[in-house]
Amino acid sequence: MLQLLDHVRVILINTTHPGNIGATARAMKNMGVSELVLVAPKRYPADEADWRAAGAKDVLENAVIVNSVEEAIEGCGLVLGTSARERKIPWPLFDPRESAERAQQSLQAGNKVAIMFGREDRGLTNEELQKCHFHVHIPTNEAYSSLNLGAAVQVLCYEMRMALLGEHPLSGKTLDRWDHPLANAADVERMMVHLEQVLIDVDFLESGSTNQVMTRLRRLFTRQQLDAMEVNILRGILRSTQKALVSRDGGSIAE
Amino acid sequence: MLQLLDHVRVILINTTHPGNIGATARAMKNMGVSELVLVAPKRYPADEADWRAAGAKDVLENAVIVNSVEEAIEGCGLVLGTSARERKIPWPLFDPRESAERAQQSLQAGNKVAIMFGREDRGLTNEELQKCHFHVHIPTNEAYSSLNLGAAVQVLCYEMRMALLGEHPLSGKTLDRWDHPLANAADVERMMVHLEQVLIDVDFLESGSTNQVMTRLRRLFTRQQLDAMEVNILRGILRSTQKALVSRDGGSIAE
Repeated sequence: MLQLLDHVRVILINTTHPGNIGATARAMKNMGVSELVLVAPKRYPADEADWRAAGAKDVLENAVIVNSVEEAIEGCGLVLGTSARERKIPWPLFDPRESAERAQQSLQAGNKVAIMFGREDRGLTNEELQKCHFHVHIPTNEAYSSLNLGAAVQVLCYEMRMALLGEHPLSGKTLDRWDHPLANAADVERMMVHLEQVLIDVDFLESGSTNQVMTRLRRLFTRQQLDAMEVNILRGILRSTQKALVSRDGGSIAE
Repeated sequence: MLQLLDHVRVILINTTHPGNIGATARAMKNMGVSELVLVAPKRYPADEADWRAAGAKDVLENAVIVNSVEEAIEGCGLVLGTSARERKIPWPLFDPRESAERAQQSLQAGNKVAIMFGREDRGLTNEELQKCHFHVHIPTNEAYSSLNLGAAVQVLCYEMRMALLGEHPLSGKTLDRWDHPLANAADVERMMVHLEQVLIDVDFLESGSTNQVMTRLRRLFTRQQLDAMEVNILRGILRSTQKALVSRDGGSIAE
């Protein structure tokens, strides 16, 4: 099962210190994880990244640099976000071990899994966390919870490896028997944009307003880990709704 | 049980790079471990140790420096030694998780537990390993097994903390901390009926037809327990959609 580690992607967002990128590469390779995506690193490439990577320079050389979280999670059926603190609207939250068990099930069902790590000082933004199916919290000492970035990557990759080594029996095999593959993150994102437009079209939301409703809907549709067929159905409903509105007033509404 | 972490001692032997001593202090404090013993460090104290320790300088300040392993393990009822490879004379060998479980039992029985980490390049000597009750092996990628010292300390201290927290400290807590009560089944059922009507109104479904779509939508909305607020929002969307349709064709559609 260890070859499934090839389908695990580590994403670092807006990393400030290149040494942490190097330490991440080393921690990943030690655990057999190789796919690294960097979202707009502050200073990279950098010598410090290379020497902290030690024998894991190949992970750095193969790292992909992108500008947005959307690009970073492209193609992933399950997206985990590391979170140091509680948020206003709570999201499903698991420790690294349970997260790895859930990720393992998803990997075995044929999905790609992304683990997102935020900035050294501020972690992930709320917007980034809302793109995640669930959040991972490393249960640190409350009196001193600021884990070094490389150390956090080490713990998560270690748990991924332990899960795939089969130390712990699966608690539920539901996803193994699912009838459709999970939707990929980009398709779900497009659906959320479409949904927001329809909610404006039907005067449920005001255009340009920001409120908790979209956040709650986003949470609802991410924590469920939608499959591809479900996203097709939901998109079909949104299109039908727009067509029905247009046919009744003869106007035109952009999809 | 977390206060038992006060009876865990981390021992670093002949450490070459002071940065690793600092990283060790940070990893320890993050996990609630505070007792550090350094056996003949090559270069210490050192600025690099201080800055890598970040907010864990108190662990460094309280660290004890000794000259021998015997002094370092003084008073400990259980001694674990980290080992990267198999030895000629095999010793009991466990992964970090099982090691932590055994350490936990020993801590609960009133013992002090020491975890020894060897040199960056050569680990522990055979003589040092033979002073251990058992050996701990972190199951690394065979193609690249040289774990950074701070990373190894992080993994072991993390497992110690997890063992003392009891398995899956966060598991099941998500719903305890959820911001709204779960919706009751009757409300969800009414929502499903309402949804089906709207899908007919927007010509997504034909009236009276039976197909898999409603079954799939039902599965989607039941497999992740909706909270009461989410059901309110979804009902609101359905009502808005119907109103928008009515206002555009002047007709009347029953809710």
